[in-house]
Parts: sequence; C-alpha cells; structure tokens
Amino acid sequence: MKFLEDKIRAEGTVLPGHVLKVGHFANHQIDITLLREMARELSRLYADAGVTKVLTIEASGIALAAAVALEMDVPMVFAKKNATANVSGEVYCAKVASFTHKKIYDVIVPKDYLSADDRVLIVDDFLAQGNALNGLVAIVEESGASVAGCGIIIEKGFQGGGDALREKGYRVESLAIVESMNDETGEITFRGE
Amino acid sequence: MKFLEDKIRAEGTVLPGHVLKVGHFANHQIDITLLREMARELSRLYADAGVTKVLTIEASGIALAAAVALEMDVPMVFAKKNATANVSGEVYCAKVASFTHKKIYDVIVPKDYLSADDRVLIVDDFLAQGNALNGLVAIVEESGASVAGCGIIIEKGFQGGGDALREKGYRVESLAIVESMNDETGEITFRGE
Repeated sequence: MKFLEDKIRAEGTVLPGHVLKVGHFANHQIDITLLREMARELSRLYADAGVTKVLTIEASGIALAAAVALEMDVPMVFAKKNATANVSGEVYCAKVASFTHKKIYDVIVPKDYLSADDRVLIVDDFLAQGNALNGLVAIVEESGASVAGCGIIIEKGFQGGGDALREKGYRVESLAIVESMNDETGEITFRGE
Repeated sequence: MKFLEDKIRAEGTVLPGHVLKVGHFANHQIDITLLREMARELSRLYADAGVTKVLTIEASGIALAAAVALEMDVPMVFAKKNATANVSGEVYCAKVASFTHKKIYDVIVPKDYLSADDRVLIVDDFLAQGNALNGLVAIVEESGASVAGCGIIIEKGFQGGGDALREKGYRVESLAIVESMNDETGEITFRGE
C-alpha cells in the first residue's frame, strides 16, 4: 500500500536491533484515516476468502482486527498473552517467543471462540520472524478451523517469517514489506522497489 | 442501551467475587454488530463535546476505542500497562490497582501522544472501582489536555467508581450500569429498573 509505505518512510524511525518505530501512527497511537484504509484494503484482499472470524493477539493488533472485522462484518477474537482470572474453562494454548520483549509467553484462546466451521483471518501489526503468527496458526488448526490467511500492517521481509509461512502454503498479505532498513542512515527499502 | 442490557442478561454469567463474564461477546470475542452499535451510541452522546482523541488502556478497551475513533474520525491512543522496549522517551505514568488481576501496575502513555490542545474521550470496557479510569484521567490532566468524558460498556454501579467520578464533575456515560448481580441466581438488575 503506497500510502502506508510513504508514511513509514516519512514518519517511521529505524532503531538499532531491527526495530522500526511506527507507534505514533500505526499501532499505539493510531491515525484513523490510515486505520480505515488498511482495514478496507485487507477486507478487499480477503473478500472472497469466506472469512467468518478475525483473530489477533493483544495488544497492538486489536485496533486493526476491530477495524477489519467491522469492514467484513464478522466477529473478532483476540488471543491473550497470559491466563487471567476471567479466562475460565478450556483454552487453546501456544508458546510464543517475543522479538520485542525477548521472552517466551503463552498465547491463549478459549476453546469456545473457535469452531471447526470457522475460516479465520489472522491479523497483526508486525510480522518479523513470525513467532506470534505461527502460534496463532497452530491454535486455529488445533481447533479444526481453517486459516483463510494472514493480514499484516508491516512485514520485515528480511527476517523471513512471512516467506516461511508462504512456503508452507499460507496466504500472507502484508500492506508494507520492508526489505531492508539502515539504523545509521534511516533508509528503508520496500519489497518491489 | 437496551440491546446491550438484554444481551448481558441473556448471555452474561455472574461469577463469585463480583465478576461478570461477558468475554464471549463484549470484550474478548467481540460481536461486531454490538461493537458497531456501541461505538455509534458513544459517538452520538459525545458528538458535541469537541473530542480530538480517544484514549483507552490495553487490552480489552482497544476494540471499542478503535470503533469509536472510526465513528468520530479522530485518532486513538492506548495506554500500556508496562514499559516495553519500544516505548522510548518521556512518558506520562500512573499507578493503577487491577480489580481483575489483583496487582498494581504502571499505566503509561508517551508524552508525544497527548497535548494541551487535546480534548480526550476516555473509553474502556468495564468500570468498577474506577482505578484504571482514574489513572487515565490523571494522565490526561497531567498532559494539560482536558477530559471530554468517559465512555464505558459496562459499569458496575454498586462498586461506586462511576459515581465517584461523576461527583467530581466528570461526564461518565456507561452503556449499561449493573446495579446489582447475584452469583447464586444469576440475576442482574440495571440502574433505572
């Protein structure tokens, strides 16, 4: 999405350690015009995919998931990163390593929220090594539901998680794929450029 | 909102310890028709309040905040419950005690995301003792911005947090106010009934 690429290049900040900071418009503070356009684009891309549910993981994927679910008129679910006092009953669980937080956590979805009839669009803000996404794919498949595909705001192509999923046959649509970024010059190259 | 009250009564579960479980339609798995109607109602209630930004707290307030921000066409921000590797620079911070998780955590908003010109609508899924909301109000006022009001899905009226805020002069609009609930019979009474 050219609009998103331009915004990342103009307003994103490249930090050491493969960190791309876009929190002030893409996932923490959210530019609402951008959110609406991203949701419409993902909804358009998956319009014929039979999506019955949008799944994401807390916290920074939730705004996009809500906007996509509103566009597609299907329910949304978010996976929690820890068990809480309010999650009772049986849950699907996957272990996920966090690139940002450098720790391993449990990703949890109550079993009631996914069924074998569901065709699930998994959305998230970032895709790097694909750890969170692989955890969500595993949870969807454990439930007997099928994965319609993945919808991502920013994929860091050079970290390989997206291409590994594509090689396994999953559809992955990323609105911007960063092919390289330089924390000294701030230069960002997108796939296809 | 009658539609929401009916849904809470039909599908909510009252558990011991003042817990009302509505996670399968209101805040964890989200009924998208309900989300749209709730966002429209809050947008309608605050249409003339000069709102420039919607603020919530991760994670279960984010879907509502996104939907309200889309309706009102203003940016949204969510407060994080912990500092992360991606939050750099100066932040506003408030200490908040969690009713659900029974612990105290830091609520953090980067200073860049709030300015003295902002008129902030604070939204959240639940309002009980008001700890999270008081933290968000404190952060908004520390930034020099003003509080347009609060928009809540379910207020537990009997826990007093909403009325305490109203007594201090804040506008609090809750789409359903539970006046009493009984974990033995499952009976729920709403304010005004």
